[in-house]
Amino acid sequence: MSTISLCEPKYLELKNRLTQIQDLEVAISVLNWDQTTYMPTGGTFARGRQIATLRKFAHEKFTDPNIYQLLEELRAYEKSLPYYSTEASLIRVTRRDYERAVRVPSEFMAKLSQHQTVCYEAWVKAKSLKNFSLVQPYLEKTLELSQELASFFPYKHIADPLIDFVDEGMTVSILRPLFKELRQKLLPIAEVIASAPPIDDSCLYQHYPKEKQLKFGRSVIERIGFDFQRGRQDETPHPFTSSFSIGDVRMTTRVYENNFSEALFSSIHEVGHALYEQGISPELEGTPLAKGTCSSIHESQSRLWENIVGRSRGFWEYFYPQLQGIFLPQLSRVSISEFHQAINKVVKSPIRTDADEVTYNLHVMIRFNLELAMLEGKLSVKDLPEAWNESYKKDLGIVPANDSEGVMQDVHWYGEMIGGMFQGYALGNLIAAQIYEAIVKFDPEVTFGIERGNFTLLRQLLKQNIYQHGRKYTANELINQVTGKSLSIEPFISYIQDKYSNIYNLNFAIIA
Amino acid sequence: MSTISLCEPKYLELKNRLTQIQDLEVAISVLNWDQTTYMPTGGTFARGRQIATLRKFAHEKFTDPNIYQLLEELRAYEKSLPYYSTEASLIRVTRRDYERAVRVPSEFMAKLSQHQTVCYEAWVKAKSLKNFSLVQPYLEKTLELSQELASFFPYKHIADPLIDFVDEGMTVSILRPLFKELRQKLLPIAEVIASAPPIDDSCLYQHYPKEKQLKFGRSVIERIGFDFQRGRQDETPHPFTSSFSIGDVRMTTRVYENNFSEALFSSIHEVGHALYEQGISPELEGTPLAKGTCSSIHESQSRLWENIVGRSRGFWEYFYPQLQGIFLPQLSRVSISEFHQAINKVVKSPIRTDADEVTYNLHVMIRFNLELAMLEGKLSVKDLPEAWNESYKKDLGIVPANDSEGVMQDVHWYGEMIGGMFQGYALGNLIAAQIYEAIVKFDPEVTFGIERGNFTLLRQLLKQNIYQHGRKYTANELINQVTGKSLSIEPFISYIQDKYSNIYNLNFAIIA
Repeated sequence: MSTISLCEPKYLELKNRLTQIQDLEVAISVLNWDQTTYMPTGGTFARGRQIATLRKFAHEKFTDPNIYQLLEELRAYEKSLPYYSTEASLIRVTRRDYERAVRVPSEFMAKLSQHQTVCYEAWVKAKSLKNFSLVQPYLEKTLELSQELASFFPYKHIADPLIDFVDEGMTVSILRPLFKELRQKLLPIAEVIASAPPIDDSCLYQHYPKEKQLKFGRSVIERIGFDFQRGRQDETPHPFTSSFSIGDVRMTTRVYENNFSEALFSSIHEVGHALYEQGISPELEGTPLAKGTCSSIHESQSRLWENIVGRSRGFWEYFYPQLQGIFLPQLSRVSISEFHQAINKVVKSPIRTDADEVTYNLHVMIRFNLELAMLEGKLSVKDLPEAWNESYKKDLGIVPANDSEGVMQDVHWYGEMIGGMFQGYALGNLIAAQIYEAIVKFDPEVTFGIERGNFTLLRQLLKQNIYQHGRKYTANELINQVTGKSLSIEPFISYIQDKYSNIYNLNFAIIA
Repeated sequence: MSTISLCEPKYLELKNRLTQIQDLEVAISVLNWDQTTYMPTGGTFARGRQIATLRKFAHEKFTDPNIYQLLEELRAYEKSLPYYSTEASLIRVTRRDYERAVRVPSEFMAKLSQHQTVCYEAWVKAKSLKNFSLVQPYLEKTLELSQELASFFPYKHIADPLIDFVDEGMTVSILRPLFKELRQKLLPIAEVIASAPPIDDSCLYQHYPKEKQLKFGRSVIERIGFDFQRGRQDETPHPFTSSFSIGDVRMTTRVYENNFSEALFSSIHEVGHALYEQGISPELEGTPLAKGTCSSIHESQSRLWENIVGRSRGFWEYFYPQLQGIFLPQLSRVSISEFHQAINKVVKSPIRTDADEVTYNLHVMIRFNLELAMLEGKLSVKDLPEAWNESYKKDLGIVPANDSEGVMQDVHWYGEMIGGMFQGYALGNLIAAQIYEAIVKFDPEVTFGIERGNFTLLRQLLKQNIYQHGRKYTANELINQVTGKSLSIEPFISYIQDKYSNIYNLNFAIIA
């Protein structure tokens, strides 16, 4: 077809422009990474300006009318290609990104960004003073701006565009019934566990020297498959993973000497994100396709490694003897069963980030529902702390000691916006279970590998089915593709029932 | 004047544009710094592309016709202001930079940059195989391109534009007679020292554990005045200093466990560069004025601290007892006089970067003269190794064992170009001596401070006279301003004679 060959140079031009924009985006990421890892405090002011300038240039380059022109000219070429081919996917994903970018006026983005900084600072202060009223007016403005942002897009539910930013294809009409069902199943499970004799996890809270923790963590993530030739691990106050190219993926961790779980499980969590980014097909390098497809799929990969693998009995069959050898005084009298129970202890606690696998989703769904209620105008920011505490009382049976441990615990609403901030965490857990179930069904050898510290098979299957594709598939497309089914809560619930009935020696069948 | 007030918004617009370009330049520096300090090897390919993209954008933004327009519109405003005011200086320096940037076609810059990469790789290989002929054709091309680059500018001598890039205002007609005189004075001094009994510096080549070296070096540079709140020190294969803002200046070092001098003196050298960058007036932050004015003045600051201060007897009166305490087995039997002699040993060696203060300039002038001869067409690249060896025989009395220790020892010609590469090193030594002489004459307390480990006065005088001004003054303007005289070799020669007549117990008066 002559149309195709005519279009190819246009495709190359588009790709070339996108790579240059990507290079600017990466520079922003490097400046951010540097700021949180090694930058001296004196650099703070200029660094803020430098990042803002690069953002502005990247935005200008991407919303350039030439990009629109190229996308229009490439329509026929795109249609002539298989839907999931690299070329068609790049054009399709770029068109979606472009339409999203141009719908929002840049003055609005500047206003939002400025407000986010101010609101974040107010939150830091309000949180340290345990006084929600100090941040309330700012959060009210955030809510207004979030609603305004949504209004630039067509929607069925006002939260849909905000959810779509991070989890493309997910909507309130999909998530509300799904989460309702999830909550109904989880509440009785959490109840039954709460009535069982509590697990003693004091072994995790002894003194674990930092250097030894870092060394052990490093050996674990290397064994799991993190490629240190194509990445690094550094320390930061809050762990994160950042990709500067497929050959340079950086993860960070933090160490608490009196809490063994923190560094290790956050490292395994981040290695899940990092393997995803390291596993993207080199063919996609330098294009917008070269990253994890969305927040929920990304989180599914971190949670799969952190929880399904990293907190499994099989995993510790391999690693526990090594761990005992390194921390002899601390663990010599702790059996593998006791250790495995300790790292899986279920507690109804006020803080999401400390939560176990059973209660974690309950924390997330509380936030999701409050977000919807605020966006819908059914809940005012003024009444948010009360609504928060009521939800916690109802679903977790506790009331936070104060608003810093309650409604102000997470940065998301205060530093970003209201809407789309939390569903990815719960979805990640559901998707992880659904994908893992499908993979083990496909090749049961996976679990035997884990028990022998051999993660190659699992990693290869994930790479082949998920990692390599980058952004070619949306979350829903990928879930269908990999598991043959749409997203459902069943695999997660059955995973939780199996695992915790063993750990707590309970029978959930009666409540199911 | 109404012209002025009309122009002020234009000035702010110019400044704002320049700051954004500066932000791009800083991002490039951060990417470079990251590449040499922490980047995993897997990131190499993408990093090269990322830096090239940012360079391209920075160049585009700077050569934008709007910049020209603004500079034209600001002529009257500039003239209405004092010459060295920040505003007039920014316009003047930007105009010079702009004229330089637009004279060279961007296709030529791309060609040069591409060739530099290829030639650099050929040099790495040729050097490791000790075979100049492998890099010869590439260096021939470099010579051609260097001549072509010069041809875009008006000149008296073909090397002038290339020198002007890094040492604005310096020309062959200034440098050739200056260096001729310098060589005539230095050769007999080096000769007399060579005939004196050699110094035993074996104490420096014992085993000095790395961590202790780094700790001591850090305490020295902190004492000298490096502000760790506004900077860092990291390790790299080749030491350098990079400024990301006045509040974030980073220096690097390298440690050899069997050579005490390397890490310490390269750290003191780099701290000279770093103090300069940290000492620039905050008023200039984010503008093109916010950096050291040129290569020779920058080098004068690093050499002043490294040699005139760091290798002085007074400096070690303060630091030697500490050093002995840290390295007890190594230095317990080495007196301060023996140590001071060891760190000032003069040797006619084949390698520039290992050279002492007396012979260093001889190494540099050999290169300068060879550069001129090649650019003039009087020396072909084919004959360069022979000419190199002849010069070394004549001025240093030695012939390098092979071309890797001879003509291929420095990266400059192979990685950058021929012309303007070396004069800054010799000028730095001359300027350092001239400035230091003037400062001590102005306030002799400076030397007493050094003996007590108190560098505040020296640092303040340097800041006040040099650092704070950034690029407002050219090298020649600054030398005149600070010393009341034009550049001359006398202060350097008299410094060398005083210092080495003491160290070697000689009388140079007879040869002077």
